[in-house]
Parts: sequence; structure tokens; C-alpha cells
Amino acid sequence: MFSFKVEHQDAQSSARSGRIATVHGEFQTPVFIPVGTQGSVKALTPEDLLSLGVEIILANTYHLFLRPGHERIARLGGLHDFMHWQGPILTDSGGYQVYSLGALRKISPEGVSFRSHLDGSSHFLSPELAIQIQEALGSDIAMCLDECTPYPVTYDYARSSHELTRDWAVRCKQAHQKKEQALFGIIQGGNFKDLRKESAEAIVNLEFDGYALGGLSVGEEKDARQEIMAYTLPLLPGEKSRYLMGLGTPEDLIEGVGLGADMFDCVLPTRNARNGMLFTREGSMNIKKAEYVEDPQPVDPECTCYTCRHYSRAYLRHLYVAKELLSYRLNTLHNIHYFMELMQDVRGAIEQDRFMEFKKAFYKQRKE
Amino acid sequence: MFSFKVEHQDAQSSARSGRIATVHGEFQTPVFIPVGTQGSVKALTPEDLLSLGVEIILANTYHLFLRPGHERIARLGGLHDFMHWQGPILTDSGGYQVYSLGALRKISPEGVSFRSHLDGSSHFLSPELAIQIQEALGSDIAMCLDECTPYPVTYDYARSSHELTRDWAVRCKQAHQKKEQALFGIIQGGNFKDLRKESAEAIVNLEFDGYALGGLSVGEEKDARQEIMAYTLPLLPGEKSRYLMGLGTPEDLIEGVGLGADMFDCVLPTRNARNGMLFTREGSMNIKKAEYVEDPQPVDPECTCYTCRHYSRAYLRHLYVAKELLSYRLNTLHNIHYFMELMQDVRGAIEQDRFMEFKKAFYKQRKE
Repeated sequence: MFSFKVEHQDAQSSARSGRIATVHGEFQTPVFIPVGTQGSVKALTPEDLLSLGVEIILANTYHLFLRPGHERIARLGGLHDFMHWQGPILTDSGGYQVYSLGALRKISPEGVSFRSHLDGSSHFLSPELAIQIQEALGSDIAMCLDECTPYPVTYDYARSSHELTRDWAVRCKQAHQKKEQALFGIIQGGNFKDLRKESAEAIVNLEFDGYALGGLSVGEEKDARQEIMAYTLPLLPGEKSRYLMGLGTPEDLIEGVGLGADMFDCVLPTRNARNGMLFTREGSMNIKKAEYVEDPQPVDPECTCYTCRHYSRAYLRHLYVAKELLSYRLNTLHNIHYFMELMQDVRGAIEQDRFMEFKKAFYKQRKE
Repeated sequence: MFSFKVEHQDAQSSARSGRIATVHGEFQTPVFIPVGTQGSVKALTPEDLLSLGVEIILANTYHLFLRPGHERIARLGGLHDFMHWQGPILTDSGGYQVYSLGALRKISPEGVSFRSHLDGSSHFLSPELAIQIQEALGSDIAMCLDECTPYPVTYDYARSSHELTRDWAVRCKQAHQKKEQALFGIIQGGNFKDLRKESAEAIVNLEFDGYALGGLSVGEEKDARQEIMAYTLPLLPGEKSRYLMGLGTPEDLIEGVGLGADMFDCVLPTRNARNGMLFTREGSMNIKKAEYVEDPQPVDPECTCYTCRHYSRAYLRHLYVAKELLSYRLNTLHNIHYFMELMQDVRGAIEQDRFMEFKKAFYKQRKE
């Protein structure tokens, strides 16, 4: 009960549009997946997400494991019922969050021991437990536990890191029992092309429902990132969906799509919203700037989102400066709308074989 | 363009139902007015308010004067356009907020000098300026500047305080020019009946569009408050609306309505929501309690609000503990719904001459 279908292949690039079906419904690709870390896309209701055209969200295994606990969520009917979202959910494996804990975690072949960022309590995450948690949550797409290779890193570390990820992928696949839940493999290998190739071959050989590139946007230069994307994405089978984990900026999305990626997730639109950074066609706008204090215009006069239809920059600046809760919500609505519309436009361009023109126009419009 | 009409007088109490018309539309009474201190009812959009049946909101002169400034709001088209709320707005005079500043303010016959709670800057609020600010904001109902008599207080202070409020009321009335904006007078006098009587006679004598009791819920016992309400409300002319400023609890609302009050405002439902305190028919529920950690029930199984229709106590507790922004919104939706439904039921009971039965049932249901 999981399928991916390429519906149109762009004539002049590797971009393609398609559709993924899960037990909780379908979504179109290329897709940007908003992040609902703790079982809530910050400041929004599921109805807000639907009104924005969101078809799939991501939730974090690490956070929900620690609080309120995956077994508790299972007893409450699973994550969909718990958070009142009946569309598809993708859960990460917890690998990236544990990696982000730095000194608080220790990796061994068996798994990762770590201390909770909440209360310092000790935990151990194995590939088997990562799968068990995601099965308990009941997500539609689960991810294998991986080690997110740090940056910068030596060649030797990157090699042993991707080998560990490969070994864990074997164990994840063995542990995975929930037929209606898809399981994706993750390619690592740092910024080393031969290691990315080794990793891709090993992971693809294990036959997953889809494949993700991990370890991107962890501190490397944009050019280096795009080079690795351009090199590695073609190594993944075209009939399976390709997911760029943790990406990213509008530019990352455009570049990734052009290289044949189908899925993206990132906290950027939601986190930036809460910091007063708003996305527009021309670049980003810092709503707290003094120049907006009496500006009667909407954030983007051409934008059709709820926020732009009803509120001025002056009001949004006021809410932000006054730390009003509505600020986070209105800014988040705008930013998610921007990402959803961007991906809708991307799909439209692909379907008309004019993705390269779209990409050119996208960059031309930006003033940054 | 302001009118108040009593539509039904309860047969067994002083409770009455009615309707107030303003240039921005009508609202039914008795009414509870949610507070939008800084030009936003915290965590909610105007559309949320409409869906909850809210017909009028309150905004604070003191806060909007300091930030973003009343003249700025006027240049942006007035408060209604600024905050995207096209229904009636009542503004307070700033008196209560300035009173709350304690050591930061100094009262003289001319007005109040105070320091901003935001940046310590010095300001002077006179009765004339209070009116000017409210005219610039463009509210539908403005309030006279008053001194909110503190509690406890000596008889002599309470007397000179209500006399000051009376003198300021004269000046407010003289300064007020905006014909389409109603102006209400405020009765003070502390907990001294003869002073309340003096104040009521003096203020009513000035002929305002409506009358408010101020200086309640400032630290006095509930019984003392109800005694002053019971004594003073009948001194106000029945053909004008009676407003209990800053009240209150569901009990205060029920008692006030029974004594003939028509309008109430309070931060209680919104502020308590943000502290995880939810109102139910049986009393209040502290959603952060450990006992709700796995409770699949809604806050109130009989409640029809958005929050109760879609979320469990367990999820609401999780959001609260995890400090998720959605927590504040879902809790606020529930609490405002509770207050709106309570007032709707109150009006229904009055219209059927069974307010006293309703009041009895209200108290019987409570478990506190």
C-alpha cells in the first residue's frame, strides 16, 4: 500500500513530477514537507495546513520518543489521531537529532547512547528501536536509522560512517514488519563522491521503498552540496522516489528538483517565520525592520495567502515587536504558502516541459 | 449612531437581554467582551473570533498609545483596518493600566504622569488625551479616563478619587467630538456605598451613552464586590447599558447579569488558556496535570468547540508541556467558546424568564 508513480519527465532536465500513494492518501511530487517536530507544525492547525495545500507532514521520532513517548501515542490511537492529521506522515529515524546532540551522544556499532536534551536522562537508540518507534507512531513513511556524517570530516571517518549506516539499514529492514508503512533507505558518504557511490550502491541493493540523501546542509558550501546532489541523485533508481533530507532553501529546492529529487523537508519556513523572516519572490524580508513601521502594503502584494490578503507590513511588524502569538501564526501561514506555491509552480512547469525556463525566471526575480 | 435597546426583562430578576448598535454593527447583551490588548486577541485571528460568535472586542488605549502609537494607527486607517476586525471595538481609557503601573505613575488633578513599562520613557495622560487617542483609534465605544480607586483604601482617598474621576469625566465629555463613537462614564467610589451613590449621581448627571462600574476585582472579597454591584447597578438608568469593567469569572458574570449588568470584559479566558487553565461546566481544569497524560477524552465531552471536537486531554497536555504554540491557540479557542456559550445560554434563559433557574443549575453543576 505504498506506490510512487512518475507522471511526467521534464524534456530538458532531470526534473519529474509524480504521485505517491499511502494508506493515508496521496501527495504530488516534487513535494516540500513541513516539519511538525513534536506532533504539531508550529502555530498551525491541521485545517490550516490543508487550506495551504499541504499534503504530507514530517514528525520527529527523537522528540516523540522522549515526549510523550511512542507507546503512549500508540495507545492513544497513533500519531494521526493524536495530532488530528489524517494525511500522510513521514517520520525521520531520530538519527539526525541524535547527531545534533554533539557531546551528549556516543555512537557504537550497536546503536547510539544519548542523553535527553529535556532532562538529561540516558537512552539507547538502536536501528531496531528506531523502527519500533516509527511503527508505533504509525507513520506512512519511515526512515532507516543512519549516522548523519558530520562536516568537515576525514575520508576515513566518512567511510566508516556510511558503512555503519549501511549495516544499520540491513537491521532496519529486518526489523520492519508493518506492511502498510513504507521504509526508505538513506545514502551517506559525506562530500566524497566515491563514498556516496559506495553508499548508494549498498543501500539501493537492499531494496527500499524510496531513497534519501542524508548528511546535506550540515555546514558544507552550497556549491559542494549541489555537486554531491548532482553526482549522487542519478545513482538512485528512477522508479523510486528520491528525498533530499533537511533541505532546504528555495534555491536548494529548485536545484534539487532539476537534478531529479522528489521530496524535501526543512524547518526553514516555520522557524524563519517565528524569527520574522518572510519569504517572497524577490528574496527574504525581515519584518522587524524599522522601515516597515508604517508600511500599509502586504508582505508581497502579489501573494494570495491569508496573511497578505488581510494584514499590512506595519501590523505584522507590530505583532512581531509586541511578541504577540498571532505574529508566529500569520508569518508561518505566509511562509508555508510561499513554499507550497513554489512547489505547485515547479510541478506545473515540469508538466509543461518548461522547468529550465521556470528556473531561470526564479533566479531572475530574486534581488539578493 | 449608537443605540441600546432592552429587548427582554427577566420576570424574576434584574437580568435583561438587549442589543447595542454601533457603526461597525450590532451585538447582543448581556455580552462578554474578549480582550485584544495590543490590537490582537492573543493567539486568535478575527475569523476565529467570528467563528466563536464573538461580536465585540476590547483594545487597550494605554498599550496602543505606547506601541505602535495612536497617530500611526490612524494614518493606517484606524484600529479596525489595522487589525482586520470589522466588528465593534470598545477601548478602555488607559486609566486602569496606568493605575496598575504602581510606583511608575503619579496622579495630579491635571492627569497622570507615568513611565512606560516598555522602555521607561515619560508620558502624560490627560482626560483630553485619553479621548484623543480613542478617537484616533476609531473605536465604537470609548471610555472616560478614571482613577481606578485602589483596594484597600481609606474613605477619604476613595472620596477624592471618585471626585477626580468625576472632574475628568466632565473634561472627557467636553473633549469628545467624534459623533459616531459612544462615550461611557465610569462610576468609582471603592467599597463605600455612599461614595458609589455620589459617584453614580454625578456621572449619570453628565449624561453618557452608557455607564460602567470601575474599581471592581482589584483585590476585594467576592462578597464585598457583589454587595457593591448589587447596591450600585440599580442607581444607573435602566435605558442605558451597564458595564462591569474587568469582570470576570463565570460566577461574576452570572451575578452581574442577575443584577442588571449588560457588558463584561476580562483577560481571564485568554490569560488562563495560556496558563493551561481550561473552563468547563464543572469548574476549571488544569491541563498540565499528570493525570491527563494519557487521557483520550476531550476537555469537556459535552463541549462543541473546535478543540474539544478534535483533540484529547493527552494531546493538549503534550502541547502545553512541550510549549507548542498550538497549545495557546487551542486552549484559547476552548475558553472563549466557553464564555460565549455561557452568555448565549444566559440570554436564552432571560428571554424565557428563567434566569433564576439557570443560575441555580449553573451553581449546581460546579464541583469546585
